[in-house]
Amino acid sequence: MLPPAHLLVVAVGAALLLAFRPPLPALAARPIVAAAGGKPAPTEAAATARWLAAQNTWGVLRLSPSQFLCRLLARDPLLFGGTDCTISSDLSGAPFGNVVSYSDGVPGESHGIPYFYLTTLDPTARDALEDERTSFTLSEFPLGTCGKIDPENPTCAKLTLTGKLKLIDPQSSEADLAKEALFTKHPEMEGWPKNHHFQIFKLEIKNIFLIDWFGGPKPISPTEYLEYEKNRALLKSS
Amino acid sequence: MLPPAHLLVVAVGAALLLAFRPPLPALAARPIVAAAGGKPAPTEAAATARWLAAQNTWGVLRLSPSQFLCRLLARDPLLFGGTDCTISSDLSGAPFGNVVSYSDGVPGESHGIPYFYLTTLDPTARDALEDERTSFTLSEFPLGTCGKIDPENPTCAKLTLTGKLKLIDPQSSEADLAKEALFTKHPEMEGWPKNHHFQIFKLEIKNIFLIDWFGGPKPISPTEYLEYEKNRALLKSS
Repeated sequence: MLPPAHLLVVAVGAALLLAFRPPLPALAARPIVAAAGGKPAPTEAAATARWLAAQNTWGVLRLSPSQFLCRLLARDPLLFGGTDCTISSDLSGAPFGNVVSYSDGVPGESHGIPYFYLTTLDPTARDALEDERTSFTLSEFPLGTCGKIDPENPTCAKLTLTGKLKLIDPQSSEADLAKEALFTKHPEMEGWPKNHHFQIFKLEIKNIFLIDWFGGPKPISPTEYLEYEKNRALLKSS
Repeated sequence: MLPPAHLLVVAVGAALLLAFRPPLPALAARPIVAAAGGKPAPTEAAATARWLAAQNTWGVLRLSPSQFLCRLLARDPLLFGGTDCTISSDLSGAPFGNVVSYSDGVPGESHGIPYFYLTTLDPTARDALEDERTSFTLSEFPLGTCGKIDPENPTCAKLTLTGKLKLIDPQSSEADLAKEALFTKHPEMEGWPKNHHFQIFKLEIKNIFLIDWFGGPKPISPTEYLEYEKNRALLKSS
């Protein structure tokens, strides 16, 4: 059966729109307009995950093992006071998380990939980072949309993105886009002291763990998550 | 040189007060009246850490490795939808964090030890938990006291407690105190379904990582942290 003419027009229009969209080689995921719709329905797992990433500005990043932490602390005595690595050796082998700011796009146009602005690491630590899996955890609770629901209640959404923390080449176009994404959501970052050697990192997402309702974590693939808006456009046009 | 008489009276009085304080075998740390003073000064590291733990109601707990997660998901199909452990194997070896609620005491009388109300684990997972180091991360940002300061700015405090997650004997007096602490701060917990086998856990603190100002993490020992109020009383009386 042929589709009705008006649906065909919509489909062709959507295809044209997609075809002529300006390329985003660095932030490859399609944008989601976050502020418009409010929290998506629990049935919309990918939308909820993207909404949570777009709305939040900070989360808990699991840092690499003790050696990384030690080097990071030793590297930046102004910010971190220096260290003889006693803190690090105390933490040997322990999991470690810290609060960091992030942005997945300029406000209202997010792409799902969290970018971070962290102090530079020395090459050894950087190598360790490349090999090291990382997780980044967000809660809906600080957004205020859980109301009186407890932060642990499964209907108050929680998102953990697992993957690799990658240093971004500061000369790349991705770095420019990421800086714009970070500095619009975190204006004070732009004025952070140059001698602290802040650089841009991104989370290369491998696994997504979302709880937003009773019934368990929602299975979302990184592709579903990153291409959420594209898929939605295709669905609408089919 | 002998101390002046009035100081001696204060010191003896304080010693008597301490001596006749009702015993708190389970929540051994001295209480801190959190709401009264607002955020402590940056020079008061232990006070700031205790204030942050007392004021917050949720944080990010680094769960044990994949096998624990898998068992947890498999254990509670109603809450988590069951699993064939594919999520777990995907996450194999990855660090993993999730948002959980906690309480370190009834409001206005906290003791610094975070208690959690989590679904029961099977004995194997429980053993794994006992051996496994855990970290629990809190941010000052959701309290609203950072104002317009960025969540990553070191003056917006961050606390990571590292240690072991221990299951509390449900028949113990510690369990009763912990339940009171949890249910007063998280009233809905008391009504959570019995067939989800929620049980009480605590974080046995081994290391404390606080950033609340420029100049690096503050060195705080678990004893300084847990006995903060006691030390303050002694200081005042000396």
